[in-house]
Amino acid sequence: MDVVSYMQDVGQRARAASRLISRADTGTKNAALRAIAEVLDASREALAAANQKDMAQGRDNGLDAALLDRLELTPAGIDGMIEGLHQVAALPDPVGEVSDMNYRPSGIQVGKMRVPLGVVGIIYESRPNVTVEAASLCLKSGNATILRGGSEAIDSNQAIARCIEAGLAASGLPSDVVQVITTTDRAAVGELITMPDYVDVIVPRGGKGLIERISRDARVPVIKHLDGVCHVYIDDKADLEKAFAIAVNAKTHRYGVCNAMETLLVAESIAEDILPRLVAAYVELGVELRGCEATRKLLDTISGNPVAVANEDDWYAEYLAPILAIRVVADMDAAMDHINTYSSQHTEAIVTEDYTRGRRFLNEVDSSSVMINASTRFADGFEYGLGAEIGISTDKIHARGPVGLEGLTSQKYIVLGDGHIRV
Amino acid sequence: MDVVSYMQDVGQRARAASRLISRADTGTKNAALRAIAEVLDASREALAAANQKDMAQGRDNGLDAALLDRLELTPAGIDGMIEGLHQVAALPDPVGEVSDMNYRPSGIQVGKMRVPLGVVGIIYESRPNVTVEAASLCLKSGNATILRGGSEAIDSNQAIARCIEAGLAASGLPSDVVQVITTTDRAAVGELITMPDYVDVIVPRGGKGLIERISRDARVPVIKHLDGVCHVYIDDKADLEKAFAIAVNAKTHRYGVCNAMETLLVAESIAEDILPRLVAAYVELGVELRGCEATRKLLDTISGNPVAVANEDDWYAEYLAPILAIRVVADMDAAMDHINTYSSQHTEAIVTEDYTRGRRFLNEVDSSSVMINASTRFADGFEYGLGAEIGISTDKIHARGPVGLEGLTSQKYIVLGDGHIRV
Repeated sequence: MDVVSYMQDVGQRARAASRLISRADTGTKNAALRAIAEVLDASREALAAANQKDMAQGRDNGLDAALLDRLELTPAGIDGMIEGLHQVAALPDPVGEVSDMNYRPSGIQVGKMRVPLGVVGIIYESRPNVTVEAASLCLKSGNATILRGGSEAIDSNQAIARCIEAGLAASGLPSDVVQVITTTDRAAVGELITMPDYVDVIVPRGGKGLIERISRDARVPVIKHLDGVCHVYIDDKADLEKAFAIAVNAKTHRYGVCNAMETLLVAESIAEDILPRLVAAYVELGVELRGCEATRKLLDTISGNPVAVANEDDWYAEYLAPILAIRVVADMDAAMDHINTYSSQHTEAIVTEDYTRGRRFLNEVDSSSVMINASTRFADGFEYGLGAEIGISTDKIHARGPVGLEGLTSQKYIVLGDGHIRV
Repeated sequence: MDVVSYMQDVGQRARAASRLISRADTGTKNAALRAIAEVLDASREALAAANQKDMAQGRDNGLDAALLDRLELTPAGIDGMIEGLHQVAALPDPVGEVSDMNYRPSGIQVGKMRVPLGVVGIIYESRPNVTVEAASLCLKSGNATILRGGSEAIDSNQAIARCIEAGLAASGLPSDVVQVITTTDRAAVGELITMPDYVDVIVPRGGKGLIERISRDARVPVIKHLDGVCHVYIDDKADLEKAFAIAVNAKTHRYGVCNAMETLLVAESIAEDILPRLVAAYVELGVELRGCEATRKLLDTISGNPVAVANEDDWYAEYLAPILAIRVVADMDAAMDHINTYSSQHTEAIVTEDYTRGRRFLNEVDSSSVMINASTRFADGFEYGLGAEIGISTDKIHARGPVGLEGLTSQKYIVLGDGHIRV
């Protein structure tokens, strides 16, 4: 197979399809989403069979348990995809929204109209449900999509692709609106990210290695989510009950997620009042702790200090696991210095009752989400009311934070006149 | 000089300065802008002397008249820079603007806060007044700037840099907020566009060649303006008086600008009614015409047909000159097909009195500005009420159309809670 000409063909088809889907009306797009859900529901056996093939191959290839777990498409997983499609169908259509329409002194009316980006390329690993999730968000936002899943999920993804195709056909949309790459040749990724004529933006979903590689080699804009080294800072003016609840929730509500707290910062003057109690709670929940010298000293009273020594690497670490780094800092400025140095600019929270400090933290911390007295776990498309998200951007350009339908659109200017000319 | 370590140093300083300028209050930023204006006014002699040096060097190097013209810093040019600084000072500060603040079912309040991008790198050619223009927009929007002007303007740019530095100092801001590269070594550009740790976005201003080269080699997002192949389509339902005024204005109001019409499309059934009159007007204004066969046929009655033969290249051409391509098309769909194929997605206008066609054109044409019954010449930051612009983006990602202060910012999410945790 000639990967270059195959990908060029995929790109050309996507560009042509994007012109059609960009002006499909909301009803048609919603009908397609619901039709895909119906076909998925009717294809449970075929999906299971395809997934079994991938699973067997994966076992033969010695994939580890975590990878196999992500690869598996359970009946509940299929329910989830169907439910997700109905949720996206229920979201408001961002396309065509007109805003800021005002008269100018010249007499023209100028405003903005929200429009699809065009063609979105999605590159992702193992989890086959991403195929439906990403396709549904791109479809609803009027974009054509080119999906490139992991080679270990090729049969599952192709089975899902056939369901999407049937759903599109049932609602009169061309199948090229959603194309799932049929080759596992890695050269296809290289092509996909270097076709600016056919692809408007790339959204990579996967490990940091994948995303860094794609960002480095892409000739197309990339909406990327590198990592989530999120912080909670407990200020000396904090309500300690709130601080306790937030610090426990931010770390232990879920471990493998990008909005979990990875480093806890505590103001020196209240460290003694809160840390022993917090550490006890973490220990009970099975969280491994690594602290600065001051933290360890405070816990030294407990026999067999539960806090190991944190080193420089710990401040940079995204554990995605029941591990927490703890640092005692002089004050909020020291906390912000730490955040400035080590944060991945994903989400940071302060716990404080002090008005001026809260206001300063909100203004001065440069992360995609900045919070006062709330758990970092809220940094999420659903919690923010955006609906499903295609990812959480740690970039500043175009989209920052959870990227939902709006992040998959752009705005053009519209001008209404009545024969107006410039004088 | 070691360009790599010089640029790394510039980058580090810019990153550090961006932290300070990002939280400078509006009053301080405006004071700095006005102080720079004052210093420029007091430095007219030094500026003229530096510019004379560049001009003499340019003549020795055989620069053509157009380049020398752009390089020259006249007293009126200095007035323009001073006036521009006062205008930017008078614009509202976009930084810190909070929008869409709403309560969520969980009880948290979620909104967006507008924040600076960080460090903006500007790469431009000859015109030294860009130094002040770009610096003022970046400063007002809370960004640190690294400016790299053309080597032919090095003395002028350094003289301007000293004025900016003095103005910043007078208002208590560090000089690293605006850094003008002191070396003419081209390797500096290569470094600037490949330092993602220190530079958040690159804005190239100059010819298409420069912009294409930078987009290809950059490892940093680029806000780019490639070219302006703008169209006016005169529909058969047009008011011909409006059509005449708009078609003349869009081409002849100014020639060397990106929002000038380069191709005129005319509906077949009214071509006879409007083209001879329009052609006569263009000829009188000295516009060279190149038309399709149908256009030429219509004008054949005039002895020595004023319309030359247009070839395929003409449909792609951005003349930036008193030259116009004319094509007769069957209807609006054919016009939109032509635009889809040849447009640079800058600005397109339809002239029509038909409601449904106007609505369709507005929705279906995918350009950064789409107009009904108005001259393409309105596609401009001032005309749109955005104030001065750093460029007009023909990209879809991040900023589209005229890029003013808002295009130099991003939005972060802010979350206010009262001890809220996720359940």
